[in-house]
Amino acid sequence: MVTDATTPTWQLDPDRLLPVDPATRRIARELYGAVAQRPILSPHGHVPAALLRDDKPFADATELFLRHDHYVTRLLHASGFALDEVGVPALDGSRPAAPPREAWRRFCSHWRHFAGTASAYWLRDVFVTEFGITEQPNAVNADALFDRLNTHLATDAFRPRALFDRFDIALLATTDDPLDDLAAHRDLAADPGFRGRVVPTFRPDAYLDPSTPGWHERVARLAERHGTPESSYDGYLAALRERRRYFLDHGAVSADHGVREPLTVEMDHDDAAALFTTLLRGDGTAADARLFAGHMLFEMARMSVDDGLVMTVHPGVHRNHSTDTFQVYGPDTGHDIPVRTEYVQSMQPLLRRFGTAPDFHLVLFTVDETVYSREIAPLAGFYPSVYIGAPWWFLDAPDAVGRFRAATTETAGFYRSSGFIDDTRAFLSIPARHDMSRRLDAAYLARLVAEGRLDEASAHRIIDDLVDAQPRKVFKL
Amino acid sequence: MVTDATTPTWQLDPDRLLPVDPATRRIARELYGAVAQRPILSPHGHVPAALLRDDKPFADATELFLRHDHYVTRLLHASGFALDEVGVPALDGSRPAAPPREAWRRFCSHWRHFAGTASAYWLRDVFVTEFGITEQPNAVNADALFDRLNTHLATDAFRPRALFDRFDIALLATTDDPLDDLAAHRDLAADPGFRGRVVPTFRPDAYLDPSTPGWHERVARLAERHGTPESSYDGYLAALRERRRYFLDHGAVSADHGVREPLTVEMDHDDAAALFTTLLRGDGTAADARLFAGHMLFEMARMSVDDGLVMTVHPGVHRNHSTDTFQVYGPDTGHDIPVRTEYVQSMQPLLRRFGTAPDFHLVLFTVDETVYSREIAPLAGFYPSVYIGAPWWFLDAPDAVGRFRAATTETAGFYRSSGFIDDTRAFLSIPARHDMSRRLDAAYLARLVAEGRLDEASAHRIIDDLVDAQPRKVFKL
Amino acid sequence: MVTDATTPTWQLDPDRLLPVDPATRRIARELYGAVAQRPILSPHGHVPAALLRDDKPFADATELFLRHDHYVTRLLHASGFALDEVGVPALDGSRPAAPPREAWRRFCSHWRHFAGTASAYWLRDVFVTEFGITEQPNAVNADALFDRLNTHLATDAFRPRALFDRFDIALLATTDDPLDDLAAHRDLAADPGFRGRVVPTFRPDAYLDPSTPGWHERVARLAERHGTPESSYDGYLAALRERRRYFLDHGAVSADHGVREPLTVEMDHDDAAALFTTLLRGDGTAADARLFAGHMLFEMARMSVDDGLVMTVHPGVHRNHSTDTFQVYGPDTGHDIPVRTEYVQSMQPLLRRFGTAPDFHLVLFTVDETVYSREIAPLAGFYPSVYIGAPWWFLDAPDAVGRFRAATTETAGFYRSSGFIDDTRAFLSIPARHDMSRRLDAAYLARLVAEGRLDEASAHRIIDDLVDAQPRKVFKL
Repeated sequence: MVTDATTPTWQLDPDRLLPVDPATRRIARELYGAVAQRPILSPHGHVPAALLRDDKPFADATELFLRHDHYVTRLLHASGFALDEVGVPALDGSRPAAPPREAWRRFCSHWRHFAGTASAYWLRDVFVTEFGITEQPNAVNADALFDRLNTHLATDAFRPRALFDRFDIALLATTDDPLDDLAAHRDLAADPGFRGRVVPTFRPDAYLDPSTPGWHERVARLAERHGTPESSYDGYLAALRERRRYFLDHGAVSADHGVREPLTVEMDHDDAAALFTTLLRGDGTAADARLFAGHMLFEMARMSVDDGLVMTVHPGVHRNHSTDTFQVYGPDTGHDIPVRTEYVQSMQPLLRRFGTAPDFHLVLFTVDETVYSREIAPLAGFYPSVYIGAPWWFLDAPDAVGRFRAATTETAGFYRSSGFIDDTRAFLSIPARHDMSRRLDAAYLARLVAEGRLDEASAHRIIDDLVDAQPRKVFKL
Repeated sequence: MVTDATTPTWQLDPDRLLPVDPATRRIARELYGAVAQRPILSPHGHVPAALLRDDKPFADATELFLRHDHYVTRLLHASGFALDEVGVPALDGSRPAAPPREAWRRFCSHWRHFAGTASAYWLRDVFVTEFGITEQPNAVNADALFDRLNTHLATDAFRPRALFDRFDIALLATTDDPLDDLAAHRDLAADPGFRGRVVPTFRPDAYLDPSTPGWHERVARLAERHGTPESSYDGYLAALRERRRYFLDHGAVSADHGVREPLTVEMDHDDAAALFTTLLRGDGTAADARLFAGHMLFEMARMSVDDGLVMTVHPGVHRNHSTDTFQVYGPDTGHDIPVRTEYVQSMQPLLRRFGTAPDFHLVLFTVDETVYSREIAPLAGFYPSVYIGAPWWFLDAPDAVGRFRAATTETAGFYRSSGFIDDTRAFLSIPARHDMSRRLDAAYLARLVAEGRLDEASAHRIIDDLVDAQPRKVFKL
Repeated sequence: MVTDATTPTWQLDPDRLLPVDPATRRIARELYGAVAQRPILSPHGHVPAALLRDDKPFADATELFLRHDHYVTRLLHASGFALDEVGVPALDGSRPAAPPREAWRRFCSHWRHFAGTASAYWLRDVFVTEFGITEQPNAVNADALFDRLNTHLATDAFRPRALFDRFDIALLATTDDPLDDLAAHRDLAADPGFRGRVVPTFRPDAYLDPSTPGWHERVARLAERHGTPESSYDGYLAALRERRRYFLDHGAVSADHGVREPLTVEMDHDDAAALFTTLLRGDGTAADARLFAGHMLFEMARMSVDDGLVMTVHPGVHRNHSTDTFQVYGPDTGHDIPVRTEYVQSMQPLLRRFGTAPDFHLVLFTVDETVYSREIAPLAGFYPSVYIGAPWWFLDAPDAVGRFRAATTETAGFYRSSGFIDDTRAFLSIPARHDMSRRLDAAYLARLVAEGRLDEASAHRIIDDLVDAQPRKVFKL
């Protein structure tokens, strides 16, 4: 029996994720090799711009790898720890986060619980590639690893801008509140010492969906900023238009919509205005709120048609499933759970109106993989606006990515897919994630070649397009 | 970087689609070889009988490969072309189809958009096998390919009957309107110069579902043909029975039902008659129409039990999703999109009554692949009437077919599946499609052998049955 | 053409189900080898305790392999036999079971219909391993096989206790009615001649769901046994608590819930009591019954939190789909059909209340495999109480198990899964089923190793845990 204390060292197989059949692996290796060093385009993610503006060292390994990564804390929670025990403090201070070293020990002693997960894949890659660590975490080496990581993190080579350069990130998109002044983006753009391209993303959900706590207050702040009465529906629309313009002026390429369901509703202007008034008064029902949110998603498409922001939709997640956990620790603490999602009916009003509008781009993401072959690929195979979003969240993992390609390519080819997005808060994992995607595309293409379905030269062109031309086109970079 | 102008030549790998592992490939090669030359049985498709009766040369490559193949035009549309630009004219003449050569150029210059799709697989097979073309289409060779294909198409060897013989088609089923006089079928049967077997298929949807535009008029024409008052529900049923008999007399083996949902409703005769009257008067609600359509699907099963026509059901498609496109270009223009489909509850009334009726055959198709393991295989694993339809439409592609076998065989074996149907309008692609199916069955069976789950001799018997005995049994050929 | 009369002999490939790639197979072989001989833990199944207490020889091959195995009889029924023709008698005696030898002949002559199914895999394993039979069943050898099997079954070596020892079963759980006196379990425990561990499982569905035929009578018997008035809701709850305690005292480790849908409802005590009264009076609607059943599932969780019984939930089956068959032959005759199932919303009331309760274990099974990646793995990846149930029923087959691991591991790792359960009535197939599971886990782990995603030493620890430590932990053995 192997115990935690004697876990073997890591070997980072240069052929990892490539097909095991030797002939197919040879093809995949060449495909991967051709794009392995290409710069990273990250058109959707959650790294804050201030991280790069301020360029401060990361506090410690727990802060960097555990606390903000709910892929990791969730599984530690499932293993029996309270969230504060692994670095996530209660909002009201009643349960402070465990000391970082203790949290780290807990993580290391439960490392085997991550075997086979996407998190384990990325973390291993980061530890080996960035830190030269080849020991698997365990109860015995936890302290030594913690110290070693922290020593690295204190050096200049591990400050955010140094990493940004080393990772060869050609573009990084952040995700921002519509009323954010984008000062960090502005500072970065003005900073002669930083040559990277960091662009904001307009994320208006909480201003559009009346069922979101605080919607009324946000609408009021939006009106105030815009200088229109909060009760004016036209002012509300104008304010949203103006904020989108502000984001565009600061380099934004897309607007992101994290809706519960991708319902779209085309509503008459006066009806929408009346409903807006009702909802602001607090008189609307849940059905009214749902309708209005669907209408506003429709309106966002209209604005994207007008101003050119790429529209991305990330639906289908039941947020904050464990209400007690939410109350104590807040959102994004690991209990957002996917639900069955329907696109064909829900998005028809939007697509009927804007599906063939010139230069409109609509990227559909999903965490319900049943829709890849049934709904999203057929939609993207007809509507010039629709692109198939890369596998997202729970599906952003080797086997799931393979299923995604197999489920979409036969209907829609490669050129209706979005290119990879990493969607991450975990800055250090960005290269590992993009590298994983390139390996998996190489693996899928190599199989097509080995099965006589595609010639090798075409496969080379496709993988090159998938890491560069395709995301540039889809996200208008 | 490979450009369109330098795309490499095609090689048609004799082992294409077979498993890449050498030992498994050897087994698969033998299985495939044993059936590769077997005659083609095509018990469901959309080639018109007049094509073979008239035996006229195909007009040109665009007419043959693009215009009528919405698998192809849809993806060109998604790539940014209007449908008329790729050969599909507006119904009202306002946007005539582009000249065939121009449409062809657009197709060729976007060939890479098809990489990995089922269409690319079939087209390559047809181009290489039938025309000896080994250059991949691109912007440079488009004109030369067009001319070369057209030169072939003008020869006698490429007239429909010559192809029918060369393809070794033992049976071809067409799909026909219930009021079709089947003159083309009669002429073919009477023609001593044509020895093929071409049979009609009864497709009554538009006469059964009151929500179909023109339902009332069709019911009136049906009544007129039958000589009963249009308002008579009994006359309506009798007319349908009579038309089925007419089809049977002309060789039909099956009745095909392309319903939105496989709802079945057992309704009392008098209730059904009253509802029929209400709907004819135009007084029914959408719910009434749905109920009546469900009742008529039930009645079709009853008629199949009586007259022996195999009942095939193709549900789950939202037709004409882009309403603007539909209005300008008509139906079957690439925006029929699958929707989630439910069989277990929906078909229970039908199965409760007729599921074990002697000699009743009910073939269930799907474009929602989630139902293979959950619903269709378990139903076919119990009811002697139910057969699992071969992967259809969006699922008729290599990886999807693999998923189909893996999802159904473990519950229901091979002998509850329908055998392959090509369901195609694209006459020239028929051999490539059947060949693909045989390769994929060989691949799946070879894997079972290689994994020690099946002996090779049994695999040989099964693949032989799948291309011959099984479709003969299921479709009563 | 191979005919039934010349079917080849079986070879039981020692590497069956392992990956075909030679390098991966080598890894898998070692992983499998390390656990192939480990004792069997069977924490959920349907073998009756009386079988082992009485230790009588099995009657004959038909009794043992056909009659009670609806995996087998269903497919024979689909092939055209009435159930009585293959050994299942009508309940009212109107259609007695065919003589065992005739039923056996029918099975043998249709053996090829099972090719590729899970049943064929298990049966072959049992025939070869336990009986040394290497001829595939066919019409010619049916009688000889029948005689040969029966000869073996008459020997002491094939009596239940001898098999129990030979199979090296460390624990076997039965499934029992809450009012069962568990005499067989008591006798077994008291029998110095039997050293095995056989534990009951509390299965209360028919006492909880008012829509179950006979619910009222069962509630009355429960009240009578407990000595409380049948109309007392508190008495009803107390009686259930008391019966769970009785089961615990007889060694039970879990309570199993075979609900139609996993709906849970938290209802106020007085509301629940009032609804109970209404339903007992027969005045409740179907919606009332659904609500009450949902509430009782919630209450069962509360009781599990209190008394420690592991809660297992097996939802999503439409029972007795063919109502005629049900009336003639009774339940469990092969026409229970899976339906789409939803867990995230349905179980939220339960999980909100008990999801993080100390020492509460909730194992979620499914026959709708779409929920593995979308719902169950994400739930199990957060809630410490939730474990992913092993593939069950229709999904308990090689390819389906592979899909299960691929769909769950990337989100939740290996340590949130339940370990294998065989869920079987077919006593002789238990070793074959557990062996299959071990082979498939070895295959999946070997692929992770071959793809550079996991080191071999960690894979060895994991497979060992999966057959021993994990089921011991999940089922509190």
